[in-house]
Amino acid sequence: MLKASKKPSKEKAQVRDKALKEALTPSSKLISFERGMKLDCGAHLPELNVAYETYGTLNADKSNAVLICHALTGDQYAASNNPVTGKLGWWLNMIGPGKPVDTEKYFVICVNVLGSCLGTTGPLSINPDTGRAYGVDLPVITIHDMVKAQNMLIDHLGIETLFAVIGGSMGGMQVLQWAASFPEKVFAAIPIATGAHHSPQNIAFNEVGRQAVMADPDWQGGRYMQEGVIPSKGLSVARMAAHITYLSEEGLQRKFGRNLQDKDAIGFSFDADFQIESYLHYQGMTFVDRFDANSYLYVTRAMDYFDLAADYKGVLGNAFMGTKTRFCLISFSSDWLFPTEESRTIIHALNAAGASVSFAEIETDKGHDSFLLDLPEMFDMVEGFLSSAARARGLE
Amino acid sequence: MLKASKKPSKEKAQVRDKALKEALTPSSKLISFERGMKLDCGAHLPELNVAYETYGTLNADKSNAVLICHALTGDQYAASNNPVTGKLGWWLNMIGPGKPVDTEKYFVICVNVLGSCLGTTGPLSINPDTGRAYGVDLPVITIHDMVKAQNMLIDHLGIETLFAVIGGSMGGMQVLQWAASFPEKVFAAIPIATGAHHSPQNIAFNEVGRQAVMADPDWQGGRYMQEGVIPSKGLSVARMAAHITYLSEEGLQRKFGRNLQDKDAIGFSFDADFQIESYLHYQGMTFVDRFDANSYLYVTRAMDYFDLAADYKGVLGNAFMGTKTRFCLISFSSDWLFPTEESRTIIHALNAAGASVSFAEIETDKGHDSFLLDLPEMFDMVEGFLSSAARARGLE
Repeated sequence: MLKASKKPSKEKAQVRDKALKEALTPSSKLISFERGMKLDCGAHLPELNVAYETYGTLNADKSNAVLICHALTGDQYAASNNPVTGKLGWWLNMIGPGKPVDTEKYFVICVNVLGSCLGTTGPLSINPDTGRAYGVDLPVITIHDMVKAQNMLIDHLGIETLFAVIGGSMGGMQVLQWAASFPEKVFAAIPIATGAHHSPQNIAFNEVGRQAVMADPDWQGGRYMQEGVIPSKGLSVARMAAHITYLSEEGLQRKFGRNLQDKDAIGFSFDADFQIESYLHYQGMTFVDRFDANSYLYVTRAMDYFDLAADYKGVLGNAFMGTKTRFCLISFSSDWLFPTEESRTIIHALNAAGASVSFAEIETDKGHDSFLLDLPEMFDMVEGFLSSAARARGLE
Repeated sequence: MLKASKKPSKEKAQVRDKALKEALTPSSKLISFERGMKLDCGAHLPELNVAYETYGTLNADKSNAVLICHALTGDQYAASNNPVTGKLGWWLNMIGPGKPVDTEKYFVICVNVLGSCLGTTGPLSINPDTGRAYGVDLPVITIHDMVKAQNMLIDHLGIETLFAVIGGSMGGMQVLQWAASFPEKVFAAIPIATGAHHSPQNIAFNEVGRQAVMADPDWQGGRYMQEGVIPSKGLSVARMAAHITYLSEEGLQRKFGRNLQDKDAIGFSFDADFQIESYLHYQGMTFVDRFDANSYLYVTRAMDYFDLAADYKGVLGNAFMGTKTRFCLISFSSDWLFPTEESRTIIHALNAAGASVSFAEIETDKGHDSFLLDLPEMFDMVEGFLSSAARARGLE
């Protein structure tokens, strides 16, 4: 059985809460919009906090800003140490001096998404109406809501047009939403390993994860924060299930095969005999230390609800009609969560809308998670596309 | 949140236990081997019960027996009503008078596998050493153990050679194990939608399911029977996760798409908005009523441990060297749990061993579960192969 935590749940909750608070050190950036914001569900969020990081320098005419949109369990620490985990930025191979998203040329902004748990308003935030954490009283949010919150920050920073918006997976959904909702504000868009809607299979996997969280008695109907506990076991199971979908069968075969973990023969038990089991246990356990269970519910739900065509009378091309944004799409051959076919659907729509589109399917056995990995073809594609766009934008 | 049960867990446990007991009505067949059996793990099972059903009539020279091997959560009621669920036999379209496995020609036997919960020895069985149900004190079993138990029944029935052994998924693993372990006893073998080992991705999904069960506090360290409860929520989550793997992405798209369940617009909540969510909830809930949680651990583990080549010095062909069994393999184009590639691996091994092999990959979007569905191409293939084998066996 998975030992999800050696520490008692309550102590673990305190350690985690402290780490999440420390995430907002003075070096982290936080802006509060006291006017709040109207959400797609109809509710009004009375106050909106937006936590973000920046890298590089905004030029005089504010034309070199690049917005990085993070994935489901990502965060704003794209190119700097995450203070909760102590780990390096999750896209450090993409963003930095001399990197494809070159911080010597561009001013890079990465925003913790609405509903998440690293400083931007989410279930752990204090509800000003009650003085207690929202928990599941936070209204359900959408990808469009996430983008509207990011747009409030961009406006606040006085940036009229983003040079580029870039993101993978759920980050790619935000890129598409930005291009559809604020076409005049997006000069170039790079949606990676994503789709214009969440497929039924993806909704199904998300629902399994949510049910695993909600089945944990420590979830306490979503009010676990008040009890000082965490639904660790349920959230671990959710993460394990999701993690399988981030990898490909070929990749699993190559990396793990049926190799045993620290033993010469199967143990005839329910402990982790196989390396793949140990690996999943580790993924589950470490996730619990860095992510809030209710945030997992909210952000997965936002993905499920994403269906860009539906917002444009069922015709995806309408979402981009007349757009001047130039697009670069990237997919990965072994990604079965967002297969290349979903990128092709977007390309057809962009073509129908007369948009400028580049596209590459990169051959790899590393599955959906490829966008986070060291893939020279991806870096070359992003760098080439951005350089060309920078020339067109007069940045070079 | 999933309402896994409207009845309290304890009452539900009693209803389920009663149903499982009634499954062994006088019409069901049960044989007890008081000598027990030696298991692959080294332990000796002190007593072995084998529950089975038969259809058709054994001929005078006992040459027309067909053994049907069931899948993970299947049972012996292949062509008769399941007394627990009241549902029709799970392979009623395959087995019966005039069906591909024609009960007017063949004597069909279907055995509840070792470790399951419909009468054959499993975690719900009474441990003669303690007088209480085994629970997780039952030694871990293997596919080979399942086949050895079936073989004891076949010997008991005085059948020297099975005319055919047929099964899909885990049933197919048993077919391969039969052909490898008892080649002289298997005239013809039909492994469907299966593989010669469990892949790391499949192990990963099984481990998620087991962790979901074991994370449920009602699992009680595997001793829930003594408390009169069931780990319903954990077992539901396990079943939901597994069920996704039984279907294909195309099939889900065609059957459910992003259709909403009994509503016109998304509900901005964590209830089941989408049809695919309701469908999975239903699969989870009904499963809990018919299957034992500990059996789920044991039978999934047996699948994980299956690696036929490993038992033959790493060379799969060795498992079939010199075999006279004639094989018919069937795979399904959209099956991603046991992709066609895994059937091809078996075919290469059979070719290397000089065996007689027929093979078809059937085009369908119905995924792994296709073997249970109404697929004329599959029925034609099975019927044709069996007729030809029957002529060779002198049965026609």
